[in-house]
Amino acid sequence: MKGPAQLTAAILAAAALLPAITHAQLFSLTKDQMVDFTAQNPFERFPDGRPKVPDALIERARAMSSEEVWAILPGKGFRSQYEDGFQILHPGKKLVGRAFTLQFMPLRPDLDGVIQAKAQAAGQGRMYNQTAIDMLQPGDVLVVDLFGQGEGGTIVGDNLFYYIMKATKGAGLVVDGAIRDLEGISGMDMPAYFRRAHPSAISNVIISGINVPVRIGKATVMPGDLVFGDSEGVYFIPPALVQPIVDNADVIHIHDEWTRLKFDEGKYKSRQIYGTPTDPALKKEYEEYLKKRLEEIRKTYK
Amino acid sequence: MKGPAQLTAAILAAAALLPAITHAQLFSLTKDQMVDFTAQNPFERFPDGRPKVPDALIERARAMSSEEVWAILPGKGFRSQYEDGFQILHPGKKLVGRAFTLQFMPLRPDLDGVIQAKAQAAGQGRMYNQTAIDMLQPGDVLVVDLFGQGEGGTIVGDNLFYYIMKATKGAGLVVDGAIRDLEGISGMDMPAYFRRAHPSAISNVIISGINVPVRIGKATVMPGDLVFGDSEGVYFIPPALVQPIVDNADVIHIHDEWTRLKFDEGKYKSRQIYGTPTDPALKKEYEEYLKKRLEEIRKTYK
Amino acid sequence: MKGPAQLTAAILAAAALLPAITHAQLFSLTKDQMVDFTAQNPFERFPDGRPKVPDALIERARAMSSEEVWAILPGKGFRSQYEDGFQILHPGKKLVGRAFTLQFMPLRPDLDGVIQAKAQAAGQGRMYNQTAIDMLQPGDVLVVDLFGQGEGGTIVGDNLFYYIMKATKGAGLVVDGAIRDLEGISGMDMPAYFRRAHPSAISNVIISGINVPVRIGKATVMPGDLVFGDSEGVYFIPPALVQPIVDNADVIHIHDEWTRLKFDEGKYKSRQIYGTPTDPALKKEYEEYLKKRLEEIRKTYK
Amino acid sequence: MKGPAQLTAAILAAAALLPAITHAQLFSLTKDQMVDFTAQNPFERFPDGRPKVPDALIERARAMSSEEVWAILPGKGFRSQYEDGFQILHPGKKLVGRAFTLQFMPLRPDLDGVIQAKAQAAGQGRMYNQTAIDMLQPGDVLVVDLFGQGEGGTIVGDNLFYYIMKATKGAGLVVDGAIRDLEGISGMDMPAYFRRAHPSAISNVIISGINVPVRIGKATVMPGDLVFGDSEGVYFIPPALVQPIVDNADVIHIHDEWTRLKFDEGKYKSRQIYGTPTDPALKKEYEEYLKKRLEEIRKTYK
Amino acid sequence: MKGPAQLTAAILAAAALLPAITHAQLFSLTKDQMVDFTAQNPFERFPDGRPKVPDALIERARAMSSEEVWAILPGKGFRSQYEDGFQILHPGKKLVGRAFTLQFMPLRPDLDGVIQAKAQAAGQGRMYNQTAIDMLQPGDVLVVDLFGQGEGGTIVGDNLFYYIMKATKGAGLVVDGAIRDLEGISGMDMPAYFRRAHPSAISNVIISGINVPVRIGKATVMPGDLVFGDSEGVYFIPPALVQPIVDNADVIHIHDEWTRLKFDEGKYKSRQIYGTPTDPALKKEYEEYLKKRLEEIRKTYK
Amino acid sequence: MKGPAQLTAAILAAAALLPAITHAQLFSLTKDQMVDFTAQNPFERFPDGRPKVPDALIERARAMSSEEVWAILPGKGFRSQYEDGFQILHPGKKLVGRAFTLQFMPLRPDLDGVIQAKAQAAGQGRMYNQTAIDMLQPGDVLVVDLFGQGEGGTIVGDNLFYYIMKATKGAGLVVDGAIRDLEGISGMDMPAYFRRAHPSAISNVIISGINVPVRIGKATVMPGDLVFGDSEGVYFIPPALVQPIVDNADVIHIHDEWTRLKFDEGKYKSRQIYGTPTDPALKKEYEEYLKKRLEEIRKTYK
Repeated sequence: MKGPAQLTAAILAAAALLPAITHAQLFSLTKDQMVDFTAQNPFERFPDGRPKVPDALIERARAMSSEEVWAILPGKGFRSQYEDGFQILHPGKKLVGRAFTLQFMPLRPDLDGVIQAKAQAAGQGRMYNQTAIDMLQPGDVLVVDLFGQGEGGTIVGDNLFYYIMKATKGAGLVVDGAIRDLEGISGMDMPAYFRRAHPSAISNVIISGINVPVRIGKATVMPGDLVFGDSEGVYFIPPALVQPIVDNADVIHIHDEWTRLKFDEGKYKSRQIYGTPTDPALKKEYEEYLKKRLEEIRKTYK
Repeated sequence: MKGPAQLTAAILAAAALLPAITHAQLFSLTKDQMVDFTAQNPFERFPDGRPKVPDALIERARAMSSEEVWAILPGKGFRSQYEDGFQILHPGKKLVGRAFTLQFMPLRPDLDGVIQAKAQAAGQGRMYNQTAIDMLQPGDVLVVDLFGQGEGGTIVGDNLFYYIMKATKGAGLVVDGAIRDLEGISGMDMPAYFRRAHPSAISNVIISGINVPVRIGKATVMPGDLVFGDSEGVYFIPPALVQPIVDNADVIHIHDEWTRLKFDEGKYKSRQIYGTPTDPALKKEYEEYLKKRLEEIRKTYK
Repeated sequence: MKGPAQLTAAILAAAALLPAITHAQLFSLTKDQMVDFTAQNPFERFPDGRPKVPDALIERARAMSSEEVWAILPGKGFRSQYEDGFQILHPGKKLVGRAFTLQFMPLRPDLDGVIQAKAQAAGQGRMYNQTAIDMLQPGDVLVVDLFGQGEGGTIVGDNLFYYIMKATKGAGLVVDGAIRDLEGISGMDMPAYFRRAHPSAISNVIISGINVPVRIGKATVMPGDLVFGDSEGVYFIPPALVQPIVDNADVIHIHDEWTRLKFDEGKYKSRQIYGTPTDPALKKEYEEYLKKRLEEIRKTYK
Repeated sequence: MKGPAQLTAAILAAAALLPAITHAQLFSLTKDQMVDFTAQNPFERFPDGRPKVPDALIERARAMSSEEVWAILPGKGFRSQYEDGFQILHPGKKLVGRAFTLQFMPLRPDLDGVIQAKAQAAGQGRMYNQTAIDMLQPGDVLVVDLFGQGEGGTIVGDNLFYYIMKATKGAGLVVDGAIRDLEGISGMDMPAYFRRAHPSAISNVIISGINVPVRIGKATVMPGDLVFGDSEGVYFIPPALVQPIVDNADVIHIHDEWTRLKFDEGKYKSRQIYGTPTDPALKKEYEEYLKKRLEEIRKTYK
Repeated sequence: MKGPAQLTAAILAAAALLPAITHAQLFSLTKDQMVDFTAQNPFERFPDGRPKVPDALIERARAMSSEEVWAILPGKGFRSQYEDGFQILHPGKKLVGRAFTLQFMPLRPDLDGVIQAKAQAAGQGRMYNQTAIDMLQPGDVLVVDLFGQGEGGTIVGDNLFYYIMKATKGAGLVVDGAIRDLEGISGMDMPAYFRRAHPSAISNVIISGINVPVRIGKATVMPGDLVFGDSEGVYFIPPALVQPIVDNADVIHIHDEWTRLKFDEGKYKSRQIYGTPTDPALKKEYEEYLKKRLEEIRKTYK
Repeated sequence: MKGPAQLTAAILAAAALLPAITHAQLFSLTKDQMVDFTAQNPFERFPDGRPKVPDALIERARAMSSEEVWAILPGKGFRSQYEDGFQILHPGKKLVGRAFTLQFMPLRPDLDGVIQAKAQAAGQGRMYNQTAIDMLQPGDVLVVDLFGQGEGGTIVGDNLFYYIMKATKGAGLVVDGAIRDLEGISGMDMPAYFRRAHPSAISNVIISGINVPVRIGKATVMPGDLVFGDSEGVYFIPPALVQPIVDNADVIHIHDEWTRLKFDEGKYKSRQIYGTPTDPALKKEYEEYLKKRLEEIRKTYK
C-alpha cells in the first residue's frame, strides 16, 4: 500500500527514503549455460532455456505431501532440496509451480553504480524488484533469496503481490526474507512462504542474480525446479525427478488407503499391517489391491 | 480463573504463594508534567492531562494497515514507534485506542515496603495490577511493560480480561509479558497482543509507574498515544501525527484501488503502473481518479 | 505415508535408509516396582501396575484449564509437572488421558545390538516404535521423550497416527520431538502436541524405556499420570491429586461465573469483587451462590 | 576513538550522523525521595541522598564470590538482584562499587524536544551521556539500562571509558547494552560488564533517568546499591545487607579452608565432612577452628 | 563455598532453601546387566562390571584431537558420541578418563518420597549428589545429565570440585548443566565442561540413575566409555574402539608431520601433497617415512 | 589432521565418507568484468584484474580499530561492510589483507556432475576447496561463504591452515562457516575468524564461485577489498576508501592522545574536552597539537 509520492506532502516525506533502494543484476546465465547446468531436464524449455515441467505433472503433484517427496530425493543423493521454518500465508493450500529465482545482496554503492549504469546503457531503466517481477510467466513460483532479512527485506506489498498473482495465475511466492501488507495480502488467493512480515519497504539491497542457482536456507534451488510446498515446508525438485516422485506418490496413497481399511477392521496390531504385511495372504491381498487401484487411478490421467 | 482463597483447602495451598505478589507505583506525572511532555497534542485532554485522540479519528484509523503508519512516521524522525513479535489473540481484528501505560519492575522487598506504606498512608490500599486496571476509560488500550516475563509476568487472567473489556468498551491490551487463562480469553471479543501465555499468576513484580513513558521492546510509548495493531504488529502514534496519517491512508487506499483496476486490465507490466504511472496520460487519469475518490470518501466523514 | 518397500524401485531407494532405524528397550519396571513408585495412587491399576485414573474423572477434567491445575500443584510441591512450547494440532480441543510413556536415546550400535538380540531371544521380534504403539489402551496418551529432535525424531506419520487414534479412542499424543505427514494428520480428530513437523522418517534412535519415568522438557512424567493439555501447554498430574484438582476447578468455575455477573452489573470496580469481595454483604452473597451452584453441579456427577 | 569533527572532511562525513544522538532526563528523585526510597540504608549519604556504602566494606567485599552473596539474598526475599550473560572485560578482576544508575529509552523526537528545551532553560546545555558521566564520584560503578541494544547502544568508547576510570578511581561499568573501541579499552584497568561491543556511536536514544531505580535484565537496581561482579555475573546488593553478607563470607571462607584441609587428609568421604561434619568430634573440631580463624581475620579489619 | 548452616544466622536463612534439594536413584544396572550391555568391552572391569580402559591407553589418548576420534567413529556407525557447546574451564588442558555417569530428573515429591524411603531402608542415608561423588575412582570422569539446567542445576561448587579432583586424580567433569563457584574453581587443575556457571545451589532435582546410559545433548554415554575432550568438544568412545583410534592417531600425526615438512619446502601446491601425494615418487617417500616413524613412535610405548 | 587413506584400515573406513565431498565453481568474473565491477579501484591490479591495495597501506591499516573504519564508511553510504559474531582465533592479533573470495552452496548432484565434467574437460582435475586454496597470494585473506554451516562446513583443518599461512604470509582467514582441528590450529600464527569449530570434514557442498562478490552475514564482499579485523569484528573496505580511512585514523589517534593528556590533568569535566573543546583557547591548543603530531607521524611513512 505504498502511496503515490507526487501527491501529498505526507507521502513526500516517506519518499525521501527511496533513493536508498537500489537494485541491479550481477549474475545471469546465457541460454546455453542454462541448458548445460540443467542438462538432465527431460522436458521442454522456455525460450531462455529454463526447464518447463509440464502442466499435467504440476496438477498431479498437487495431491502429494512433503513425505512423498522425501521418500525419493535423499535416496538419490539430493539432501539439500528441503527448507522449512516459514510463515505460511494459507497453510491449507498447496504451493506447486516452476521456480523463477531471484538473488539479492546487501547494497554496496560502488557495485550498485556499475550495475545501474549497465542497465541504463542497455535501455532497461533501473534494475529493481519489479524488473524481475515483470518477467514472470503463468505457473511460475517466485523464489527469492533475501538472506532472511526482515526490515528492508520485503520483496512485495499487496499491490505487487496482486500483480504476481495475476501474472503467474496464482502459482506462488517463496522468500527467504519478508513481505509487507500482510493485512491486505491475507485475502488474496495465492500461496506464499516467508520468514516474517514487516511494514517497511524493500531497501539497502541490490539484485545480484535473476534465474541463477540460489540458496534458500539449506536448499539449493535451480531455475525451473518444481517448487512444492505444504503445511510443513517447501521442496525444490529437479525436473528429472518429478515423474518418479508423482508416480511413487500414487503407490503411497494406495498403501495408506489399504492400511487404514485394515486398521478399521480392528483385528490387527499395527506391526501386522504396516509397513509390509507380515502374513503372506495379507501381503498378496495388498498387492492385488495396489495393482487394481493403480490401474483405476492412472486411467484418470489420460 | 484464580479461585476464592477462603473457601477450600486446595485453594488455601495456592494462596500461600500470594504474599510474594507485591505491587507499587514509583513514577507518575503531575497534570502539568503530562501536559508539558505531550505539548504537541492537538486534541482535548483527560482530567489528568492525558491526550484524548477524538473518537472519530479512532474510527477512521480502524481502516488502516501498519504500512500506512510506516509511510509517515520514519520520515518525521519517529523510528521507535513500532513493535512486533507478539502472539495476537484475534489476528483478524484491529486494535485501535488510546494508550494507558503501566510499568513493572522485578520485586525488591525494600522498595516495595516503602511504596505500600505510601499507598496505605494515602488511603489507596495495596498497589497492584487492579489498582491501574480500575482506572481504565472507554477507548483505552492498556499498554504494559512486564519486560517480556512469562511465568509470573501474567498481567491478567480471564476475569480481569473480562473486566477490561467491559471498562474500555473492548479497546484492547498490549503486554510485553504474558497473560493467563488463554482458553477462557479466546472467546472474548477484545484484541490483545502478548508475548506468551502461562498458567501462573502475576508475582515477584512491583508497579513502578502508571501513565508514564514506557518501553515496549524497541518502542517508546507515551500515555495518550494512539495504539494501532494489525496482524503484523503494533504502532504507537503520537497524537499530533494521527490526522496526517489517516488522511494519507485515504490516498494510499485509492492508489491501491486504481493500481489493481489497471492490473486487472492485463495490458501493463507492473512498472508501467506502480508506484507512479510512467505514461503522462495514465498519470493524469490516475490524478483525476484520486481527486474524485477522495471527495467521495471524505464526504462520508462529515 | 511411508510406502511398501517391496513394490517399486523408487521406494526401494528410500528403504535403503531403514537399517539405520534401530529400536530397543533398556529400562522397564516390574509390576512391583511400578506399584512401589506410584504408591500414592488412590485408584485401580492396569495389569502391569500402571495407575488407572477412572473414566469419570477423565471426563470431568475435560472442563478444566491449565490455570486450574496450576492452582493446586505448586502449592503441593509439584513444580515440575508443566511444559509448553509445543505446536498444537487442534488448539481448540482438550487433551485428557492416562500417560503411557516412551523414552528414546540417540542410537549406539553396540547398545542396539545387545537389545535387539535380547528382543529376538524373547520372541518379540525387532524393538521399534510400533512395539510400544501396539501396547496402547483406550484412554492412553502416548508421551514420548525424543529429546526435541526434528529430523529423524518423528514418532509417527499419518498411518501410525491413525492407528493410535483408533487404539486409544482418540485420547492423544505428546512428543518432545517431531511428527511427519502433518498434511495428512491435520484432518484426524485426536489432540497432539509436538515440537515440529518434519518429512523424514524416525531414525538413529533406540528405545531405552517403556512405561518408565520420562522427562518432557522440564517436567517429570510417570506412567499413569493424568495428562491434561489445553491451548497453553500440557500438565502431567499425579493420580493422587486428580480428585482435589477437579473438585477445586468446580469452585473456580463458579467464582468466575459470579464475578462476571457482578462485573456485568457495571456498578463495581474490579477490586471490590475480585479475588474476594471486600464488602461483607457481597462476600456473603457470593458464598451462598457458591454453595447453591456447587450442589447443582455436583448433582450432575452422580 | 571518535575524532574532532571540525578538522577533516572525512570526519565531517561521520559527524553528519550526530544530530540523531539526542539525550534527555525524564525521571529523577529529589533528595527527600531518594532518602524515602532507600530508607533502610544504615550508612552515610551523598549530598543528593544516595546511600554511601563505606570504603572499608567495599574493600572487604572484594574478597567475596557471587555464591557468598547468593547465600544471603534469596533467603531475605531479594530474588531480583543478580544478572549474568555479560561479556566481561577482565574476568579475573572483581567489580566492587556504589551504583550510579542511568536509564535510556528509544528516541522520540517529541519527548526529546521537551527535555532538551528544559535542559537549555536550566542552563545545563544538551542532555547526553556525558551529562551523567560528568557526575561520577570515586567508587561509583556506572550502571546503565540501554535495553540490550548493540548498534547505537554504545554507552562509551575508549576516551570516555578512560575518563570514567579516572573519575571513579577504576571502580567500573555495567551496561545492559554495548561499548565501542573494545580494542582500545582492553588495555585499561577498570572492570566492565557489557552485552556486546559494536563500532557504532550511541544514537537514537534519550536519557530518561539519572539515579533512579533501573532494570538490568531481571534485576532491579537502586542508586547506592553495592555492585559486585565476578567471573559469573553481577550482584546489586541493598546497602542494609552489605554488612551481613561480608560477615557471613568470612565464615564461608573459613569453612572452605577447613573442608579442604580435611579432604587433603584423604581419610574421609565427602559426606562425612561437607556441608556439616557428621561426627560430633569433627564437628567440634570445626567449630573451634572457625572461632579461632574468625578472630584472626576480624582482627585485621580494625 | 556453601557455609555451615548451624553457625550463623545468615546461613540459617539460606539453609531454609535446602529441604527442596532432594536426590534419589531410580535406575541402576546389576553387574550382569552392566556386563551384558557392554559386551564388546575388550578390557578388564571394575567390581561392578564397568569397563576399565587401561591406564596406558588413557595416557596415549592424551595426545589426540577430536578430529582423530571423528576419523573412525562415524565410519563404524557411531554417530551419537560427540557433543559440544560447553564452557570449558581450561581450554588448553585435555580431558581423558573413564565415564562415571549420573542422571537427574526434575523433582517430583511423590517419586522422591519413595526413593528416599528405599535409601533409608538400605542404610544409605539420603540420596543426593554426594552419594554418587563419594563412589568416584582414580581416572573417572563424572558425566552428569542435568538437562542443561542453569539455576538449580549446579552439580558442584568449589568444595566438591576439589573433592572430585582429589578422588579422580584430576581426571575431570562433564555436566549438561551448571557449576557454581566459578571464581574458586578457576584455580583448580582439573578439566571441566559445563553449560554455564550460576551462583545457586543444586535444587529441585532427583537422582534417577547412577552408572546407567545417559544422554548428554545428542550423545549417548555408557559407563566405562573413554571420555575425551579438547578445545572443540567432548567425545564418548566405546571401549572396543579405543585401541583402533589411538593407533590410527599415530598414523595421522606422522602424516601431518610429513605434510608440513613438504609444505615448508615451498615447492608444491597443496593438492600435490595433501591428502595423498599425486606423484608416485612422493607417495613412496611418504610411505617410507610413515613406516620409519611408526616404528620409532611405537617403540616408546613398550 | 585427516590421514592417508591408503595405509590403514581404520583410515579406509573414514575415507568412505569422502565421495560425498564434491566441489565445483559456477560463477566467476572475466578480467574485464572484474575491472568493470571494481572500477573505482585507485591501485594496481593482479593479473586477473583483482584490485591490489599496496603493501604500505596494509601496514598502516594494522594500527587502526573498527571504530576508525566505521567513522568513514556509513557516511559514504557503505552500510553493509561490517560483520561480527565470529569466534576469533587470536583476539589480540589484527587481521589485515586483500580479500580472496570463495562461495559455496549446498550440494546438488545434478549441478555437481556438470561442473566436475567441465573441470575435467578443462584439465583442472576435481574442483574442491584446495583448488581455490592453491590460488592464494601473499597478503590475501581467504573470505569464505559457507552459509554458517558447522558440521560439514569446515573449510580447513590444521594442514590446510598451515598451507594458507605459508602461502599468504600469515594474512588470514574469514569463514562464515567452520574450521576443524582447533587444537592444532591454536598454535599457528595467523588470524582467523569463524562461526565455530567442528571435528567433521567438509562435505555436502559445492564451490559456486571463486573471486566473485560474496555475502558474509550482512556484509557484501568484493574480491580485492581490504579485509580488516580486530577483537570486535571484521570490516570489508572498498579499495577507493582505504586511503581516506587510514589518513583519518591518524587524526583520531592524535585526538585520543590529546584528550587523555587533558583528562590526566584532572581539571576538566569530560564535556569540556571531548568531542571538541568548548573553550576557544583549548580548541586552539588542540589544533596546534594535531598539526604538529600529524607532521611527525606522517614523516615516518616516507
